[in-house]
Amino acid sequence: MSITEDSFAQRFGCAYVEGGGVATARGFAAAGVHAGFKPDPEKLDLALVVADEPCAAAGVFTRNVFCAAPVQVCREHLDEGDGTAAYGTARAIVINSGGANAATGEPGRQAARLAAGIVADEVGCTSGEVLMASTGVIGVHLPLEPFEAGVPAAFELIKGGTAQASEAARAIMTTDTRPKECAVTFSGDGLGYEGSTFAVGGMAKGSGMIMPNMATMIAVITTDAPVAAPSLHVALRRAVDASFNKVTVDSDTSTNDSCFLLASGAAAPAGAPAFEPGSAAFERFEAALCQVCTTLARAMAADGEGATRLVTVNVSGAASERDADAAARTVATSPLVKTAIYGHDANWGRVAAALGRSGAQFSQEDVDIDIMGLPVCRGGLTVAFDEDEALARFEQPEIVIDANLGAGSFATTVWTCDFSHDYVSINGDYRS
Amino acid sequence: MSITEDSFAQRFGCAYVEGGGVATARGFAAAGVHAGFKPDPEKLDLALVVADEPCAAAGVFTRNVFCAAPVQVCREHLDEGDGTAAYGTARAIVINSGGANAATGEPGRQAARLAAGIVADEVGCTSGEVLMASTGVIGVHLPLEPFEAGVPAAFELIKGGTAQASEAARAIMTTDTRPKECAVTFSGDGLGYEGSTFAVGGMAKGSGMIMPNMATMIAVITTDAPVAAPSLHVALRRAVDASFNKVTVDSDTSTNDSCFLLASGAAAPAGAPAFEPGSAAFERFEAALCQVCTTLARAMAADGEGATRLVTVNVSGAASERDADAAARTVATSPLVKTAIYGHDANWGRVAAALGRSGAQFSQEDVDIDIMGLPVCRGGLTVAFDEDEALARFEQPEIVIDANLGAGSFATTVWTCDFSHDYVSINGDYRS
Repeated sequence: MSITEDSFAQRFGCAYVEGGGVATARGFAAAGVHAGFKPDPEKLDLALVVADEPCAAAGVFTRNVFCAAPVQVCREHLDEGDGTAAYGTARAIVINSGGANAATGEPGRQAARLAAGIVADEVGCTSGEVLMASTGVIGVHLPLEPFEAGVPAAFELIKGGTAQASEAARAIMTTDTRPKECAVTFSGDGLGYEGSTFAVGGMAKGSGMIMPNMATMIAVITTDAPVAAPSLHVALRRAVDASFNKVTVDSDTSTNDSCFLLASGAAAPAGAPAFEPGSAAFERFEAALCQVCTTLARAMAADGEGATRLVTVNVSGAASERDADAAARTVATSPLVKTAIYGHDANWGRVAAALGRSGAQFSQEDVDIDIMGLPVCRGGLTVAFDEDEALARFEQPEIVIDANLGAGSFATTVWTCDFSHDYVSINGDYRS
Repeated sequence: MSITEDSFAQRFGCAYVEGGGVATARGFAAAGVHAGFKPDPEKLDLALVVADEPCAAAGVFTRNVFCAAPVQVCREHLDEGDGTAAYGTARAIVINSGGANAATGEPGRQAARLAAGIVADEVGCTSGEVLMASTGVIGVHLPLEPFEAGVPAAFELIKGGTAQASEAARAIMTTDTRPKECAVTFSGDGLGYEGSTFAVGGMAKGSGMIMPNMATMIAVITTDAPVAAPSLHVALRRAVDASFNKVTVDSDTSTNDSCFLLASGAAAPAGAPAFEPGSAAFERFEAALCQVCTTLARAMAADGEGATRLVTVNVSGAASERDADAAARTVATSPLVKTAIYGHDANWGRVAAALGRSGAQFSQEDVDIDIMGLPVCRGGLTVAFDEDEALARFEQPEIVIDANLGAGSFATTVWTCDFSHDYVSINGDYRS
């Protein structure tokens, strides 16, 4: 899926690249193959992203105590930073679907290290320069054979120049219904890099266990801008907080969430300095990174398990940033709100009830709520609205809820999806 | 529904009364009628509980900022204690279904006060001695006509001696599929009240918006034990914390939760002193109260919207009471865990993922998980188990998950239900 949203291009200021993805930035290639983690030979299940040279790299990982083996091994490989956000150098990223390699203990870590070794041998780098992620069922040991078969096959495509980044985006899907990828570019003119055009692109997967603090979410972002690893680390943390961490599908935070960012610097003239934090170039890069992450995050919410609608919850007028976040998240995770949206019901009472239990400080008399631009609550009281008009507006693919708490000046946005029969079907029978 | 659970009678030490409910204790009567809040004339929608004399009374109320008008007016009437747990004197409780009278502002409070006046005139007490609760859709104004018609009709049944407490339990239902009531008795022998038998009984409703800190839950408990209001207040808070506040259906805490406890003292000999906190008699009373509240709480969880199974989550080995609670609640509110149970899938990885994101402190290597008595995880690793045996055990009406965090000595139990297609159907089309 190539996402081109005018309003986002406008807000962040970068042009989307038609069909762009994780290999749009110069210096990267990506391939997806069927390696054998999934029984169906039609299903791609191994993605390999390879940089031409060792790159500056940053990663943000799940805070779940039951963090998976690949997360633990990535933290060994990116040994600067802390446990949830780290940085260092990397040359390749390998991702498998069809098994999470979580709750697998030392044998699981061993499997992840061996997989890294297979990639290192093939690509010609050290094991420590290989990052990895796994997604699928928890508690099952990951076989090595698919890595032994799939990694050379994927690298063959990359060497032959026939690798498709869109197949990498497909290979990391689990219950996602569509691949998620996008890329943007910005010009270096006026930023001290005249004549250069920089790209930031990426791919991601959702779609259950999506919740603040990362999720079953895996994302790989690449850029050809010249950014050193410590700065990349800072930029990635900020971008993740403003995008992926504002998405919730079912309030479950997974064991495997990982978001990687690699910078090749390949679009900068030889010998040009790296973007310095605080410089106009770095700010531009951060905006581009945020645009890519936000676009992917919204695509994840829209493709949440069983989703029929993307839901955007805007909270304003909060007394603090924390209150804004708590209020928006509580609305966005309320099963009653999410089923009402599925039922095309502008039931603002459920929004009010969620705000009221969120822990945010406010008075009910000061609350205004709009659903799809229709004022439904003013000063905590019901406002007569045209039910037919409301129903018509629910036909849109994106449902917007605006709540003003009237208690301050803090605001935030959280993305989620509605809660449908299909969510229950998908998760009531996932393993078997 | 008369609940007689041997294990609970054993644990708390009181005998269940067959067919017991909110009017089992001496000095109380209860009736349910169709008053007109609901369009269907077959549906009871007004419950009236009346004491022969003014009683010691205690109430615990929602902490939702959007608390409903009846909750606000009850806090005026029970003017001792604080906003969420109050006490005083009461003679009658009136409850309507078919409208929550929440987010209705001053007109809503006025309606609640007028309803109290109608009851006071009928019963012969002051308005301040009338407590009330409402349940139904939020944001809609409550009409007074049904009170004007229903209250005299209900009181007529009570005066005529033909009132049925079970009809009161029916009248407070919304999406509940069955009424919830029970009563227990204990002997005063050896407690300083020789020859007396005391009863504690009650009724409750669930079933959506059920979550810690009370919910769309309404419960009325009565006792004929002699307990003064301040002691009643203490006992009710403790009992609610150990029972109703350990239930979660969909993580939504409602605007209307109210739990009332009235004590008539009618079973004590004339002139006998009230049960003193710390005495054997008071402890016995607290156990009986906990037994009634826990029985009703479990019935609520089992009858959660769309529920096919009662789910009991036991967490032990936690480093603190707070950790135990966070871990158990996170498992019990995880949509992925709840849909897995609906799908009869012993998917312990989802339990592990929920424990891991709960904020409780532990190491994954120390975690043991059993599902329906089957060890499925030991030391954080998968244990081979007989899938057929697991499937067979899922046929039971109550699914038990035991998780030992191996990090300390704190434990707790939380009750919930599974998450089914019907939950989505019920809540995707509730208003219309």
